[in-house]
Amino acid sequence: METDERVNQLPELIATGSPAELVPVLSAMAREGRLAGELAELTRGQLHRLADTLGDQEFADLLGEMEPVDAAELLTRLALHDAADVLEAMDPDDAADVVGEFDEYDANRILIEMEPVEAAELRELLSHPPETAGGRMTPAFIAISPDLRADQAVVALRQLSAQAETINYVYVTDDSDQLIGVLSLRGLVLSPPETPVRDAMVSDIVTVPIHADQEEAARILMDHDLLALPVVDDQGRLQGIITSDDVQDIIEQETTEDIERLGGSAPLEEPYLRASPFRLVRKRVGWLLILFLAQAYTGTVLAFYEDTLEAVTALVFFMPLLIGTGGNAGSQVVTTIVRAMAVGDVYFRDIFRIVWKELQTGILLGAAMAIAVFARSLMLGVGVDIGVVVSLTILAIVIWAVTVGAILPLVLRQLRVDPAVVSAPFIATLVDGTGLLIYFTVAGIVLGLN
Amino acid sequence: METDERVNQLPELIATGSPAELVPVLSAMAREGRLAGELAELTRGQLHRLADTLGDQEFADLLGEMEPVDAAELLTRLALHDAADVLEAMDPDDAADVVGEFDEYDANRILIEMEPVEAAELRELLSHPPETAGGRMTPAFIAISPDLRADQAVVALRQLSAQAETINYVYVTDDSDQLIGVLSLRGLVLSPPETPVRDAMVSDIVTVPIHADQEEAARILMDHDLLALPVVDDQGRLQGIITSDDVQDIIEQETTEDIERLGGSAPLEEPYLRASPFRLVRKRVGWLLILFLAQAYTGTVLAFYEDTLEAVTALVFFMPLLIGTGGNAGSQVVTTIVRAMAVGDVYFRDIFRIVWKELQTGILLGAAMAIAVFARSLMLGVGVDIGVVVSLTILAIVIWAVTVGAILPLVLRQLRVDPAVVSAPFIATLVDGTGLLIYFTVAGIVLGLN
Repeated sequence: METDERVNQLPELIATGSPAELVPVLSAMAREGRLAGELAELTRGQLHRLADTLGDQEFADLLGEMEPVDAAELLTRLALHDAADVLEAMDPDDAADVVGEFDEYDANRILIEMEPVEAAELRELLSHPPETAGGRMTPAFIAISPDLRADQAVVALRQLSAQAETINYVYVTDDSDQLIGVLSLRGLVLSPPETPVRDAMVSDIVTVPIHADQEEAARILMDHDLLALPVVDDQGRLQGIITSDDVQDIIEQETTEDIERLGGSAPLEEPYLRASPFRLVRKRVGWLLILFLAQAYTGTVLAFYEDTLEAVTALVFFMPLLIGTGGNAGSQVVTTIVRAMAVGDVYFRDIFRIVWKELQTGILLGAAMAIAVFARSLMLGVGVDIGVVVSLTILAIVIWAVTVGAILPLVLRQLRVDPAVVSAPFIATLVDGTGLLIYFTVAGIVLGLN
Repeated sequence: METDERVNQLPELIATGSPAELVPVLSAMAREGRLAGELAELTRGQLHRLADTLGDQEFADLLGEMEPVDAAELLTRLALHDAADVLEAMDPDDAADVVGEFDEYDANRILIEMEPVEAAELRELLSHPPETAGGRMTPAFIAISPDLRADQAVVALRQLSAQAETINYVYVTDDSDQLIGVLSLRGLVLSPPETPVRDAMVSDIVTVPIHADQEEAARILMDHDLLALPVVDDQGRLQGIITSDDVQDIIEQETTEDIERLGGSAPLEEPYLRASPFRLVRKRVGWLLILFLAQAYTGTVLAFYEDTLEAVTALVFFMPLLIGTGGNAGSQVVTTIVRAMAVGDVYFRDIFRIVWKELQTGILLGAAMAIAVFARSLMLGVGVDIGVVVSLTILAIVIWAVTVGAILPLVLRQLRVDPAVVSAPFIATLVDGTGLLIYFTVAGIVLGLN
């Protein structure tokens, strides 16, 4: 209720409110993911009034909290020079993400309107692919000379801090912009004032190459528990930094992609509510058709066993149950293994330990399901011989499913295919066809058919 | 190759190496997730020698990088007083996690061996459930009086910094430990020296209650882009802080649980390689049996349509393909929606937008699959009438699957059930049974049966 009241009040609040009243309301909306939607419903006049009341910096901060695509849409509703002012006030890495959403013509129009220095900075950032370290970095770092003293460095920090995205680290570069050391703000504050920066700095620096994948950069930063990670070019020159709040975005984005792949579709690459049905179709239809083709041969298998099916219709009753259970067991394993690989808990070298573990697990699970399906066969009154067939089949299918589910992601990763393509639907499909072969083979032997 | 050489060298390196040589090798192993395994293979003598060479602090840092259960196992191999020294040198929140792995008897034995102050701190931390803000916090924060000046605060910081886990924030508390403000190190450094802390501090503080879920704490910290979040008790007294490196652990842990649930098993709650087959069975067999029961009624459906099956065996050929495709389509939607809810992209209030979007998507996807399955029916030579039946059926099943897949997680969340229980296997199972009903209904109408 409370939230709804605030929504209705937004236009009114814009008409009468001060920044101090507006900012908490807008921030709360941003955190609830509703800001973009609310702002999109404002009239052009209300939006201008809001931008005026907040001022460039507050408005820029607000845009920084939104998805780049939403922020871009909002900017197009402002006058060009107002939009340029807001972009100048944003953190350069966020601003680059927003400008990256425009088409080339609009991007150029707005960059021309900006201050040349800031525009050049954005053009430089936009020249790197968005999912690389270069595409994620911000040039708003602080670099000082190794010849300063600690107290001079603090003074420099005071002067430069307004331009910097973080002052938790101060980077030390030589005349040719080579990164030669780093000083944490903590180290700087705790050093005696007269210490030379050269002596106070740490020279064993963790960096990431500018062309590296953003996920690699995120992992390095997290593994070393850093607040910011310097990005260097091929010559070791400091080009920018990636900060820990970017890492949370990167990890969230990469995890979302993994989960969507595990569910059997291509990653959406934009917020769900923004995606049009056509886009959703495009992301899903590929895998759906591949899986369809992979599953189509179940028809061939069944056509091959047509005589068996006509002779023993009761076998049909258990088909969905048997292959469904196999798919479920395989899906459990695949998701566990893919995730364990993603967080670095298991590697290809562990394959024998994993398969041995899953084999034991599969035998136990298969035995439990065999008892369950035998009981079910008694309930359906199909005869003990069919009961034996389905019990043996489910045992074999579960063991087969967990083994394949464990091996496939590990092998794919070793072949440098993203292991998340082995989705739950993929393994279920694989088990459907092979499971039917197992079923009819077991039935043939036990019932003495053919 | 390089890594393998390092492994073989570890005992040798321990025998002859200095801390400067050992630390990088050990850190690399920790990052690759191999440290625990390597250390477990050392003899007791090698382990003691390693602890001696590194010293308590370095050894403590090393344990802080390992899983608590591995660290606990390692500590049991040291003499009791050595283990106590190492625990004292660890960050209190990490130390509490490690002691939490011991049984009560061993935990008491080691706590008695520790310095009383540090032992009391750990007992306090251990009194909170591990997945709450209280269980995750560290008491190693810096709190100062509002009556200090900025320069005095910097001096205090220098003195207290060794005990603190972070000095990025200095907390301001009154005489009764009430949290009344916070100063960032950045703000402190940038303030004129004579400013009173009371004037420099921010008094609009974001906090989390001590009993709150760890995930809530993580979300608050991330939403506000903080480096540390203060934890307060019911009286508003500052009890500890949660730092951003903890948040990465929390998010990783919670995401892993979500993914495992989406795959159709209960969360493992420990690293995969440590889990015994019995534990894996326990985590999986519950859902496997629930899904089995849910799917068992497919047998009833099929038994009901026994006459139809005997009359038109060709219908059987398409069964796995039809229900499999429905399951795949449903799995795509479920994983996308569950993830979108987890990252706050969609809420229950969006349900009509989502269903409308998925309905359109389902019609398009279903039409594509209808064409595919009609082509397949021609290939199998089962007759055009069967082709029409399976085409209409797959259209209906896909639309049904995407709609249910979209609605169920949203409704469950609204009912306060974790939406991740609607796993890919769950939706596949649901679609199996209902899909067969659709199939035989369509067949009955088109083929004029019954």
